[in-house]
Amino acid sequence: MQENRPALTSLPADIRCAQDYVWAAEHFLSPERHAYIAGGCGREVTLAANHAAFDAVRLWPRLLRDVRHGHLARTLLGRPLQHPILLAPVAYQTLAHARGEIEVARAAAATDSGFVLSTLAGCSLEAVAEQAGEERWFQLYFQETREITLDLLRRAEAAAYKVLVVTLDSAIKLPSPRAQRAGFRMPDDVQAANLAHYPPVAPITLERGQSRIFQGVMQRAPGWDDLAWLLQQTDLPVVVKGVLHPADATRLQSLGVAGLIVSNHGGRGLDGVPASLDVLPCIRQAVGANYPLLLDSGIQAGSDVFKALALGADAVLVGRLQTYALAVAGALGVAHMLRLLREELEACMAQAGCATLADISSAMIFKATQED
Amino acid sequence: MQENRPALTSLPADIRCAQDYVWAAEHFLSPERHAYIAGGCGREVTLAANHAAFDAVRLWPRLLRDVRHGHLARTLLGRPLQHPILLAPVAYQTLAHARGEIEVARAAAATDSGFVLSTLAGCSLEAVAEQAGEERWFQLYFQETREITLDLLRRAEAAAYKVLVVTLDSAIKLPSPRAQRAGFRMPDDVQAANLAHYPPVAPITLERGQSRIFQGVMQRAPGWDDLAWLLQQTDLPVVVKGVLHPADATRLQSLGVAGLIVSNHGGRGLDGVPASLDVLPCIRQAVGANYPLLLDSGIQAGSDVFKALALGADAVLVGRLQTYALAVAGALGVAHMLRLLREELEACMAQAGCATLADISSAMIFKATQED
Amino acid sequence: MQENRPALTSLPADIRCAQDYVWAAEHFLSPERHAYIAGGCGREVTLAANHAAFDAVRLWPRLLRDVRHGHLARTLLGRPLQHPILLAPVAYQTLAHARGEIEVARAAAATDSGFVLSTLAGCSLEAVAEQAGEERWFQLYFQETREITLDLLRRAEAAAYKVLVVTLDSAIKLPSPRAQRAGFRMPDDVQAANLAHYPPVAPITLERGQSRIFQGVMQRAPGWDDLAWLLQQTDLPVVVKGVLHPADATRLQSLGVAGLIVSNHGGRGLDGVPASLDVLPCIRQAVGANYPLLLDSGIQAGSDVFKALALGADAVLVGRLQTYALAVAGALGVAHMLRLLREELEACMAQAGCATLADISSAMIFKATQED
Amino acid sequence: MQENRPALTSLPADIRCAQDYVWAAEHFLSPERHAYIAGGCGREVTLAANHAAFDAVRLWPRLLRDVRHGHLARTLLGRPLQHPILLAPVAYQTLAHARGEIEVARAAAATDSGFVLSTLAGCSLEAVAEQAGEERWFQLYFQETREITLDLLRRAEAAAYKVLVVTLDSAIKLPSPRAQRAGFRMPDDVQAANLAHYPPVAPITLERGQSRIFQGVMQRAPGWDDLAWLLQQTDLPVVVKGVLHPADATRLQSLGVAGLIVSNHGGRGLDGVPASLDVLPCIRQAVGANYPLLLDSGIQAGSDVFKALALGADAVLVGRLQTYALAVAGALGVAHMLRLLREELEACMAQAGCATLADISSAMIFKATQED
Repeated sequence: MQENRPALTSLPADIRCAQDYVWAAEHFLSPERHAYIAGGCGREVTLAANHAAFDAVRLWPRLLRDVRHGHLARTLLGRPLQHPILLAPVAYQTLAHARGEIEVARAAAATDSGFVLSTLAGCSLEAVAEQAGEERWFQLYFQETREITLDLLRRAEAAAYKVLVVTLDSAIKLPSPRAQRAGFRMPDDVQAANLAHYPPVAPITLERGQSRIFQGVMQRAPGWDDLAWLLQQTDLPVVVKGVLHPADATRLQSLGVAGLIVSNHGGRGLDGVPASLDVLPCIRQAVGANYPLLLDSGIQAGSDVFKALALGADAVLVGRLQTYALAVAGALGVAHMLRLLREELEACMAQAGCATLADISSAMIFKATQED
Repeated sequence: MQENRPALTSLPADIRCAQDYVWAAEHFLSPERHAYIAGGCGREVTLAANHAAFDAVRLWPRLLRDVRHGHLARTLLGRPLQHPILLAPVAYQTLAHARGEIEVARAAAATDSGFVLSTLAGCSLEAVAEQAGEERWFQLYFQETREITLDLLRRAEAAAYKVLVVTLDSAIKLPSPRAQRAGFRMPDDVQAANLAHYPPVAPITLERGQSRIFQGVMQRAPGWDDLAWLLQQTDLPVVVKGVLHPADATRLQSLGVAGLIVSNHGGRGLDGVPASLDVLPCIRQAVGANYPLLLDSGIQAGSDVFKALALGADAVLVGRLQTYALAVAGALGVAHMLRLLREELEACMAQAGCATLADISSAMIFKATQED
Repeated sequence: MQENRPALTSLPADIRCAQDYVWAAEHFLSPERHAYIAGGCGREVTLAANHAAFDAVRLWPRLLRDVRHGHLARTLLGRPLQHPILLAPVAYQTLAHARGEIEVARAAAATDSGFVLSTLAGCSLEAVAEQAGEERWFQLYFQETREITLDLLRRAEAAAYKVLVVTLDSAIKLPSPRAQRAGFRMPDDVQAANLAHYPPVAPITLERGQSRIFQGVMQRAPGWDDLAWLLQQTDLPVVVKGVLHPADATRLQSLGVAGLIVSNHGGRGLDGVPASLDVLPCIRQAVGANYPLLLDSGIQAGSDVFKALALGADAVLVGRLQTYALAVAGALGVAHMLRLLREELEACMAQAGCATLADISSAMIFKATQED
Repeated sequence: MQENRPALTSLPADIRCAQDYVWAAEHFLSPERHAYIAGGCGREVTLAANHAAFDAVRLWPRLLRDVRHGHLARTLLGRPLQHPILLAPVAYQTLAHARGEIEVARAAAATDSGFVLSTLAGCSLEAVAEQAGEERWFQLYFQETREITLDLLRRAEAAAYKVLVVTLDSAIKLPSPRAQRAGFRMPDDVQAANLAHYPPVAPITLERGQSRIFQGVMQRAPGWDDLAWLLQQTDLPVVVKGVLHPADATRLQSLGVAGLIVSNHGGRGLDGVPASLDVLPCIRQAVGANYPLLLDSGIQAGSDVFKALALGADAVLVGRLQTYALAVAGALGVAHMLRLLREELEACMAQAGCATLADISSAMIFKATQED
């Protein structure tokens, strides 16, 4: 496993828009690690669809609007966000930078950005909390036992994480063909620090004729009762990540979930599912105008953020771009990327005549009459 | 004619999804043989359409469904299938591996998979039957005389083949431009073993002005009366392969055919015909919900199987992927490919919240509202 | 100007479908001449559209139809055609082969094919007539004076050409960027033999401020009165080539024109006009079921012929493919190409269950319900 | 910064259509300058859309129309234009040629073309006026103070510019990723000559937490009151450039603006906005048939001009193509490009049966029934 090139300690001169980190990261990450981070599942149909969905949307700019009072602040889930761009939970950020999530947390603090730490972080939630700003959220995967799940939750509460993000779309991990072809294997020194002290997972014993999926992995997958149980264990707002179907959205809403993240796991979960952006409008329609909806999967520019907001999201999360910026210049890179993304969003809003997030709506989207 | 590289005798380490065999096979098959196996007819419009049709369908996953009781079993044509992925009839598998269909039959037996032996197999149906499991089916081409056709049928019955698959879309064989450009010619040691002892086919003599197609090849093509005759000769369930038009489907259904295989012969028959997947819904609509429908042409991943089932198929058949796996690692490769495909299907079902094949429906397919 | 490689005197072994001549010709034509023949006007949007239009149409095959009485004969414009594939008028075929149209005429005679000689042929219409079969047609461009136009007509009548094809879409010749970039210039020994003995064309003198198009080229372009005059001069059936608009089609029909060729001049006339195949249905609808309609522009395979017939054409003409085959193997190549194309059409008909041209209809075209 | 290759002093032999200047310019401009001129903003989605929009429109030619009285003249904004192709305002043309806009003005004069000088021209408006023909227009950006804006206006009036073009879509300048990646930096000797003698712009001081966009750049962006003020300062017709939304169009119309330029700044402003051509029909519908509408962004051929006119524009402006021709052969190149574009438009009109601009309408556009 070839090592990464060391991250820079100053800002790279040739990066002027957030998406430049996509290309820049190829010079810092080893080819194997890059393939693991960049790749999607299967034929990467969903990965491509994520980007195509944003490219297909046309912004409709307006002239001479007064936006001098403009700002990006929004209260969401009771949290006062300075801007609607959060750092998505990403597993094993120590693959990209030796200090991994610690650097990410510093960048979030420095830029007043919301930040979601992954259960599978390379650094422990307690170590990260020490470096993090106020707006730290914790992403929780259900563990093999409720005891371990609850212990993770209590640790997150103790470390003052403000929102709990429960990811539900990842019962099954399929290998990424791109990472495999590149020869990627998880390095020994990259581990899920939050889980280091729990007992090892007991292997599942299958009888002859049983399925490794149905009677194996899925035996331990959470169910609706597990989610209901979890909601009773905490006063933190609980957000569910990985929703793509409106029927799931409304059921989660009824159950008392505080908000949803429309996500296809960045094209890493199940190949062939729709782009998050493509299902967003029907999910917004299902949950109503005021229910908190976030979106990830495919955001690479401020105009992408604008499009997601115009089509129904209240905020977005940035995954791969975060890791790329981390690999290029650590906390400095992530903070720079966030600043660029934020200014790109502001520029987009200014040109669309929107001074605040509340001004953004589907009226700013052009539907081609030529193509109808 | 360059020889193939010998097949492996153990599983290749770098193959983790079924579709990996597509690329892997290029290292084992000689370029000429690869071109023959991979190529389609004409401009390969239909070959490309087969894959594009699967890529265009979007799966709609669901959360937190209980699939712990899940399985893939289905009774079809009175046959108790362990799973809905069959090995399609493929001519001349000895092109890909010295023991050809013998290896394929072993793989089917080892994985409880249905297996359809081609009339044009490189190994005789009797030799294959000795190595095959219970679920062996025989694919029949009408021969020049009813006597030979009947003899083939009686041999298949005697060797305990369980279902008769009559292929009707292959009256005319057009050359594959890709194979020709690669310089492919059928090697002397690759022959249709089932036909070896029948008298050679008498050449057709045309009068001046007659067509090699209409008064030549098509003079011997079967008609509806031939099919009716055949149905009277056997108690085996008879399935017709090569159906793309709903009017043919309903006429075959009325005639007493037990089921249909929606197929364009893997893009090898007539260039420009629709993808099997694209005509599947209107054929399912024509024959009703309970009539057995299978599909082939384009399946390369478990999600493709899921999509075919969601759009109306009861089971699918895998052609090229079978031959690729055979070339890479013989019976072991084919068994491995089947296991991967099966688990990919299970993973897909689990993420779509389907525990059994009966749970799969078009409700799991997302129709883009963005694109409407 | 680099010379062509000499044409073969026997059939090339590696050509098994008509479209193979497209690629084969690249080895025989000099790069400059190939660029001139293959290129289209402007950005080649129409050239690409011609091919995309055929690829987008899906044939719907049928099973078990009896086509043993099948044939390709059709009476069109009072002419008994053995099959519906004609050789289109092509200028300067001596660019591709030293004996140019003479070879083409021989191939047409040998294969019972209709053949249309261009006004701009490299060989004189009288010389060609000596080698041609019965079904020879003459393509006429209006000349600078009615006298010369009439002289050409009388010569064609005298040489027993059977149908007059008047091309009306070529008032303006724009240079082909591809040919220009390749450095093509018309060789000195390639000339319009039919026009060799007419007085040179007087140059147009423009006053200051006048347009080279409106007051130049178009000053000599024919009008409706010229066409009416021409129709009175001959008893030959007159066909108009270059129709794309249904309003022109019906006006020509009313005027007594015997039939139309729907054509965009193979993408050589005006870039951005529709593919012939795309306008064919609305032209057929405008002129009614029984009015003779031919089509050219984009035909490269028998399935293309079938698609054109299914969408409303009575016959088709083949241009570039003819020239390519001529370059590869002279008359032998053209005859071979015609035989392949004809058999491909027959194979297509057989698989669609059509025994005669009258059986071909839009019912054999699949409209994707998936894509709606 | 690598220097340009010197422009030719005679016409390049291998340029026969206007679009050839696109490719030719790559041999004259340094790679960095070429990247700056050719590139668009962001992911260049809008840049690509501009060209795709033109390619997607199909022209519907007509036969035998009499266009001998044809011409391109049109009165627009009270100005007697000889033809509807104007030279768009382009910043810093001295990047492409040492004498920059001086050469462009000469070409416009020599070809009776309208010409719009940019506020950001490399040559002063007074110097350009000396070389320019009658039809010179001035493009105005609002400056930091009304005094400077007014001074620019008075200078333009004094130098007899005939129309004032106010560009409103450029409040924010985002860097072009392509130019940045190529290492482009503005050379020291390329400056905005019109602004050279005004006091330097005072930097904006932001308080902590303020946005560089909302409280920075946009603080100085013009508003509706500024435009109303400007309209009162001059008797010149005022045209607004950069309109994409019909609601802006009608408001500008009500305010007394004399006409609009539908433009996305050649894909240089905000990535993701629609192609100008795609919004043109709904803007024409909003402002009514007789209100002056011009269009730029994507014009590279006479057929593009025709398509824009057919879909609702009264005239078009040419930006990049102008700069490319300037780089290749200075004034001669620009004049040649204009002549080619004009003749291409005439050829297009002749083949569509249009003798005058008033004859061009959406009836000359084919809507594919095949694709519906």
